[in-house]
Amino acid sequence: MKINVVKKVLKANDIVANENREVFKKAGVLAVNFISSPGSGKTTLLEKTTEALLPDQKSIVVVGDLQTTRDAERLAPNSLQVTQINTGMSCHLYANQVAESLDDLDLDKGDYLFIENVGNMVCPGEFDLGENLKVILLSVPEGDDKVAKYPTIFRVADLVLLTKSDLLGKLNFDLDRVKEDVAKLNANVKMIEISSQEGDGMEEWLNWLKSKRHDCVGHQAKFATEE
Amino acid sequence: MKINVVKKVLKANDIVANENREVFKKAGVLAVNFISSPGSGKTTLLEKTTEALLPDQKSIVVVGDLQTTRDAERLAPNSLQVTQINTGMSCHLYANQVAESLDDLDLDKGDYLFIENVGNMVCPGEFDLGENLKVILLSVPEGDDKVAKYPTIFRVADLVLLTKSDLLGKLNFDLDRVKEDVAKLNANVKMIEISSQEGDGMEEWLNWLKSKRHDCVGHQAKFATEE
Repeated sequence: MKINVVKKVLKANDIVANENREVFKKAGVLAVNFISSPGSGKTTLLEKTTEALLPDQKSIVVVGDLQTTRDAERLAPNSLQVTQINTGMSCHLYANQVAESLDDLDLDKGDYLFIENVGNMVCPGEFDLGENLKVILLSVPEGDDKVAKYPTIFRVADLVLLTKSDLLGKLNFDLDRVKEDVAKLNANVKMIEISSQEGDGMEEWLNWLKSKRHDCVGHQAKFATEE
Repeated sequence: MKINVVKKVLKANDIVANENREVFKKAGVLAVNFISSPGSGKTTLLEKTTEALLPDQKSIVVVGDLQTTRDAERLAPNSLQVTQINTGMSCHLYANQVAESLDDLDLDKGDYLFIENVGNMVCPGEFDLGENLKVILLSVPEGDDKVAKYPTIFRVADLVLLTKSDLLGKLNFDLDRVKEDVAKLNANVKMIEISSQEGDGMEEWLNWLKSKRHDCVGHQAKFATEE
């Protein structure tokens, strides 16, 4: 009985996710869903990313949180638009919440749609939002056993960002173990060690993002300055 | 429709939680539910806690994880018994999962039942397991904005442990802000700064735990060595 209900919710979510996917495609934005535990550094990474993409490439951001608009406020300065979805009691975003937020956004004017999911290492991996790519963040302070313990999201990852990499060597963290555990779950997924604070790995991350935009959306930035 | 289903699940959970509560009371154990994000240090804290309580006070541990038995293996050395509950896709423990695990445990012989929930800052706060106390861990690397962003679990906390406190001063973390945010949600809850690595705060934590056991269970350790 309970399982049937969950299946129904998931199926309804998939229908809306597919509609979102069509909207993103038509608008020519690369939609990226950022998933991690609370405190892995999603917002800080997005602050640095939206800043680095300017002035050529425009970011639109949708942020999911139980409550508060703090992340949206932090992301506003370098984004074309920011929408905050307050999920109340829900530990992940649903596709229909993203769909509702799209009415207020000028997707046609953006190059990227960054969706910052609720901080949670489990459920966000199960709910398709219609995004092109899922980026999973794991921060060094969380520990090297988290891939094996929370396999769901690593199985669906298009990229793994090992964040707060400046703490490698300072905290007890077996990088090889993490790489092995990721490879077991998702053989070909790329992993980038990144520090939003220090800047290490930022260039590699931005290049990955831009190449994916090129692959998926297939044309140059909408407002690229002419050279 | 969807809300009704959730309510039904919650109600069924509460019935089983109340049954668990009776079992714990009859057995004379203090049941403590540990809730936090992945990587906040629940397992390390429990390793140190079960070790410190020995030889006078016996711990029984139930560990919830999506998969793997790593935490159970880590906790076995200093515990009377350890049971691992693999939740599969669920991001929190249900009362009936705890109830099922009790058949294999000699609660009568234990002083404490420590329940390590699945790493998640949202849903575990909504599902009563029948425990006497909820202890919420927040680690310094997660950041000082997490109380405001994930208020649900702080509202129901009987104690907040600020873990990895040895990183205070090394990472950007506004302790006063955290204290204020906690006080807004849960005026009288106690907070202890603790470092499982360095030992700071351990004595205060153990004293709190022992006093709560005394208050709730009302008698001395079952196997206290005679003096």
